[in-house]
Amino acid sequence: MSQSPEQNNALVGIIMGSQSDLKVMSGAADILEQLNIPFEVTIVSAHRTPHRMLEYAEGARKKGLKVIIAGAGGAAHLPGMVAALTTLPVIGVPVKSSNSIDGWDSILSILQMPSGVPVATVALNGATNAGLLAAQILGSTNAVVADALEKHRTTQRDKVMRSVEQLRRGDIEMD
Amino acid sequence: MSQSPEQNNALVGIIMGSQSDLKVMSGAADILEQLNIPFEVTIVSAHRTPHRMLEYAEGARKKGLKVIIAGAGGAAHLPGMVAALTTLPVIGVPVKSSNSIDGWDSILSILQMPSGVPVATVALNGATNAGLLAAQILGSTNAVVADALEKHRTTQRDKVMRSVEQLRRGDIEMD
Amino acid sequence: MSQSPEQNNALVGIIMGSQSDLKVMSGAADILEQLNIPFEVTIVSAHRTPHRMLEYAEGARKKGLKVIIAGAGGAAHLPGMVAALTTLPVIGVPVKSSNSIDGWDSILSILQMPSGVPVATVALNGATNAGLLAAQILGSTNAVVADALEKHRTTQRDKVMRSVEQLRRGDIEMD
Amino acid sequence: MSQSPEQNNALVGIIMGSQSDLKVMSGAADILEQLNIPFEVTIVSAHRTPHRMLEYAEGARKKGLKVIIAGAGGAAHLPGMVAALTTLPVIGVPVKSSNSIDGWDSILSILQMPSGVPVATVALNGATNAGLLAAQILGSTNAVVADALEKHRTTQRDKVMRSVEQLRRGDIEMD
Amino acid sequence: MSQSPEQNNALVGIIMGSQSDLKVMSGAADILEQLNIPFEVTIVSAHRTPHRMLEYAEGARKKGLKVIIAGAGGAAHLPGMVAALTTLPVIGVPVKSSNSIDGWDSILSILQMPSGVPVATVALNGATNAGLLAAQILGSTNAVVADALEKHRTTQRDKVMRSVEQLRRGDIEMD
Amino acid sequence: MSQSPEQNNALVGIIMGSQSDLKVMSGAADILEQLNIPFEVTIVSAHRTPHRMLEYAEGARKKGLKVIIAGAGGAAHLPGMVAALTTLPVIGVPVKSSNSIDGWDSILSILQMPSGVPVATVALNGATNAGLLAAQILGSTNAVVADALEKHRTTQRDKVMRSVEQLRRGDIEMD
Amino acid sequence: MSQSPEQNNALVGIIMGSQSDLKVMSGAADILEQLNIPFEVTIVSAHRTPHRMLEYAEGARKKGLKVIIAGAGGAAHLPGMVAALTTLPVIGVPVKSSNSIDGWDSILSILQMPSGVPVATVALNGATNAGLLAAQILGSTNAVVADALEKHRTTQRDKVMRSVEQLRRGDIEMD
Amino acid sequence: MSQSPEQNNALVGIIMGSQSDLKVMSGAADILEQLNIPFEVTIVSAHRTPHRMLEYAEGARKKGLKVIIAGAGGAAHLPGMVAALTTLPVIGVPVKSSNSIDGWDSILSILQMPSGVPVATVALNGATNAGLLAAQILGSTNAVVADALEKHRTTQRDKVMRSVEQLRRGDIEMD
Repeated sequence: MSQSPEQNNALVGIIMGSQSDLKVMSGAADILEQLNIPFEVTIVSAHRTPHRMLEYAEGARKKGLKVIIAGAGGAAHLPGMVAALTTLPVIGVPVKSSNSIDGWDSILSILQMPSGVPVATVALNGATNAGLLAAQILGSTNAVVADALEKHRTTQRDKVMRSVEQLRRGDIEMD
Repeated sequence: MSQSPEQNNALVGIIMGSQSDLKVMSGAADILEQLNIPFEVTIVSAHRTPHRMLEYAEGARKKGLKVIIAGAGGAAHLPGMVAALTTLPVIGVPVKSSNSIDGWDSILSILQMPSGVPVATVALNGATNAGLLAAQILGSTNAVVADALEKHRTTQRDKVMRSVEQLRRGDIEMD
Repeated sequence: MSQSPEQNNALVGIIMGSQSDLKVMSGAADILEQLNIPFEVTIVSAHRTPHRMLEYAEGARKKGLKVIIAGAGGAAHLPGMVAALTTLPVIGVPVKSSNSIDGWDSILSILQMPSGVPVATVALNGATNAGLLAAQILGSTNAVVADALEKHRTTQRDKVMRSVEQLRRGDIEMD
Repeated sequence: MSQSPEQNNALVGIIMGSQSDLKVMSGAADILEQLNIPFEVTIVSAHRTPHRMLEYAEGARKKGLKVIIAGAGGAAHLPGMVAALTTLPVIGVPVKSSNSIDGWDSILSILQMPSGVPVATVALNGATNAGLLAAQILGSTNAVVADALEKHRTTQRDKVMRSVEQLRRGDIEMD
Repeated sequence: MSQSPEQNNALVGIIMGSQSDLKVMSGAADILEQLNIPFEVTIVSAHRTPHRMLEYAEGARKKGLKVIIAGAGGAAHLPGMVAALTTLPVIGVPVKSSNSIDGWDSILSILQMPSGVPVATVALNGATNAGLLAAQILGSTNAVVADALEKHRTTQRDKVMRSVEQLRRGDIEMD
Repeated sequence: MSQSPEQNNALVGIIMGSQSDLKVMSGAADILEQLNIPFEVTIVSAHRTPHRMLEYAEGARKKGLKVIIAGAGGAAHLPGMVAALTTLPVIGVPVKSSNSIDGWDSILSILQMPSGVPVATVALNGATNAGLLAAQILGSTNAVVADALEKHRTTQRDKVMRSVEQLRRGDIEMD
Repeated sequence: MSQSPEQNNALVGIIMGSQSDLKVMSGAADILEQLNIPFEVTIVSAHRTPHRMLEYAEGARKKGLKVIIAGAGGAAHLPGMVAALTTLPVIGVPVKSSNSIDGWDSILSILQMPSGVPVATVALNGATNAGLLAAQILGSTNAVVADALEKHRTTQRDKVMRSVEQLRRGDIEMD
Repeated sequence: MSQSPEQNNALVGIIMGSQSDLKVMSGAADILEQLNIPFEVTIVSAHRTPHRMLEYAEGARKKGLKVIIAGAGGAAHLPGMVAALTTLPVIGVPVKSSNSIDGWDSILSILQMPSGVPVATVALNGATNAGLLAAQILGSTNAVVADALEKHRTTQRDKVMRSVEQLRRGDIEMD
């Protein structure tokens, strides 16, 4: 990842509850970088730095962020609490941390938000999809990003078609 | 709901797999109407009208939609398939239908999308939050919508504070 | 419940995310009243009144509270966030709210707190036990409360023994 | 697997969402090969190649396929969507992929199809049984295949009986 | 249901573990009747009439059955045991009986068959889909049945399109 | 139930944690009465009367009991604790009590005993089967009981066969 | 295990669905050997050798068996089907096989038997407890076995007390 | 851990069902040692040493303990039974033991206590949090402990802030 973790022009803020979430959450940074969307990455713990969380969430729109991606594991309160403190769209990434019960705790803590405070939840460890979703949100009204997303889709399709060809030619071993 | 189900200027498309989902999904329409965001509502079944789904999803951006909200129950393929056919942000609403296994099937079928095709999943039967999330996506770059969302938050907070007051005065019976 | 919801001398603070939780949470108030332990009851929503939550939790020890009981349903962040904002013991009551997935979301959101910020979780809808646990915490160093708890135990045992007697005499119909 | 992945005379089409599913899905190919039933194998992704999926499913009966076996993991939409696009019997194989939640997402996404569009679901990673079921479907009206299936059953029984013998003779160590 | 429960020319045998399963399982009979496919219906309990089960399953092919549909609840052994006693395709219907644990026991007992003995499992209480799947199996090699299935699909699609129209015209109330 | 709840010659002791379990647990008494096996019924709470539990379990063999049936709900410790205090076979009945999480808590608390202290667990609310299992344990070495059990089996089979007949004659409505 | 797998005087029959279950099921054999209770061990597959299962179960009482222990994984039908074919007590051991969904399928397939045919279910992989339970069933009316069980309990208690001592002396490292 | 396992002045008793739980439970001892709170550690098995459990629990308050931390896995009865035998606050630690079903059995056996006998349950393997909760209970009325807890919180926050700094400087690799 060549971009610096924090930037003045960031459109997407990627935050996570703990340094150990970086391994999963870097997937969001990677895809945003590929799509040329400026972002910042930092650590914000709902439980260990609640005031920092408050400041981050309440200051996010003002400093130019358009979307926040928040990842956390176990009783994952970060995405929902950030969503309570801003009206920017918040994407939640349930992280299957070491103490998680197969990820169910992370998923349900992020997904089952009460009426009034939505979190856009993606799949368990789905940081790449969180990055793509952030791009789709920007691309909803931005033609350049929309174009980049279409190209990314084409790349995905082409990759499948190459597998199809390789299998046809017998280049892939089945067992 | 005073707005007609389909409109030329709709920014949000609300679709669902079956007429029986209307009871839940009308929550999305209601909140969008409150927030003055033009939307359309229709039925698109992934399994019974797959070609209609294709046309709807592939034509969505062109006709001016910015966000799609898709609700479905059981093996809920509509949100994910629509997301595969457009690069607009797609919000998925797991509906607890009569044949659902406590909603787990709907949730997992919508949430656990593979890398490359995200669906912004909200809580089980969380159509109101889907509507709010659609508004937040629009409000990310639209100050009028952002303002309307701030006002909605204030209303929510005030409602809690009224309960606090009523409880303090003894106006609410505890048992 | 004859005591007023808020009191200057309250030792236990009972809070909940929504007025709809009162039906369950009143169980905590009832048992504390039986045991003559001063308490206060109010509504504090993590998601709709995050600043109120901050103030309540951070001011709790100073105003004389010794234990906080926090009940919430769905993605239940209140107990864990309050626990992050005070070093008083926080008892969490998972509430099986109408949108909950059989209570699993409430349980896991409250129970699975990360290392460093414990929440003393009780059973689903276990508000009475939350009240008793608060009393046990006070009774750990307070002989009067300890005595009241012993008496409560005796009452429970006597109630079982009366059932035993009634069954022996045939006063209870088996089918 | 000596047969080529695609054949003109194939009776069974084995498709899967991703190349990574081949390791599991080859079990279907292996058993069909043993039973001398012509089949083809290819990759069809519901989410990355939706149009290819449409063409494959809608053209399947015409090109002579009698049964389709579709394997996928996570939010597994391939089997159900193919079933929506053909009236051939579709056998679904839930694959426990790396991002799956212990396989529950794959199982429920495939099994819980709405009324009108059945998928014949087999066990998690049950590709061998999918192949056998395809053979049973063909064998329902084809005496040669039915015979081959009877022989396969006898082989299975004999294998158990050999274990019984070995255990009796003490040729198998118990601990 | 005008057809008699047992017939000489039946192509599909519908069996179930208990008379209480009839309410669910009649869905299979109804759809087969609509599609003009001869079937028989009877009760065969794996646990209370194991010898009857043996005779039924082992005699099924000889008496002309092409497919067996077996429904059962709780620890549902009927579909799997019948599948072990015939090489005809067996469709299993997990029934959510009164003592079932939300249907999970029925589903897992039927779905998770060991390698060698497949059961084509449909959704919880999915008897209609079981009937359709039986028709699809017959229709795989029978053009008349295939035609009837195509017509059924068209009917389903038309029904959705009528809902679409009614919603457009405002004939359906949204709340 | 004509027999008195406690008897000197009881061979089976039926105990339960609370009077509210009687509705379910009477199923065990009913079947034992049908099979003419002397039993006693009483209430023993692991949590509210731990000393009574100790005395009951430790005195059971001496007073002539051959089997203990213990039913409990929620965090159901009674069957396992009784099993720890006697070497008589203990049958555990998970009761789906009002506060239970769909019965999962009762099942797992009773079933998952550590190595060294088995509990013979039956299905959720399976008190009738607990009574039958107690009879089977006695009947293992008692020919009269074994005979009664064979007759009970015949009755069960005959009941199924009567349903088969009624269905054949059209005496049972299918829808 | 010094005893031969099959014996004329066996009181307990240990059966399992597959040779791969031996690793788990040998725990039952080991404890019975320790307690000097004659047993036999063999393989009986419900799905691959249904007739052998029938003969084994129906002949069990006649050949002198008093208890049957049956272990199986996945859709585990062996314990319940054997229980349907004999009135001897049948102990079911859910085996966590390689294809099992964390053992849930095995547990529910064995535990959730319908009324009339009980299976005494023990913990997942709980073969040792199955052996102990078989001994307890025999010991219910056999003083020698009862004595052996009491001694085994004492050994267990002594082992705990040795750990207590070692921990007191600091002979066990805590981290 | 420099402190001896048992002490006369212990305020917290840490007990566990088996020596194998020590690896997890030492987390409670470590944090109490850091906070300078005297504790004792020993093994008390509900199922293998029920009388020792009785004595320990009933004697706990008299010997000066203020809180008991009890850890156990599988059908974890120790925390609940100890809670039934004392009115001291009991903290339960669900341990994910080798035979546990992903920890669900331990969690539900400890959490779902009936009304009247609470157990303060912490996260799966959450022994550190159990130690902190014990300290919070003591710190509720003890200013020195309260101070130590505040310092511990500051340390936690500082650790997060150091990660924030390192990430900002690029000292942490993201992939």
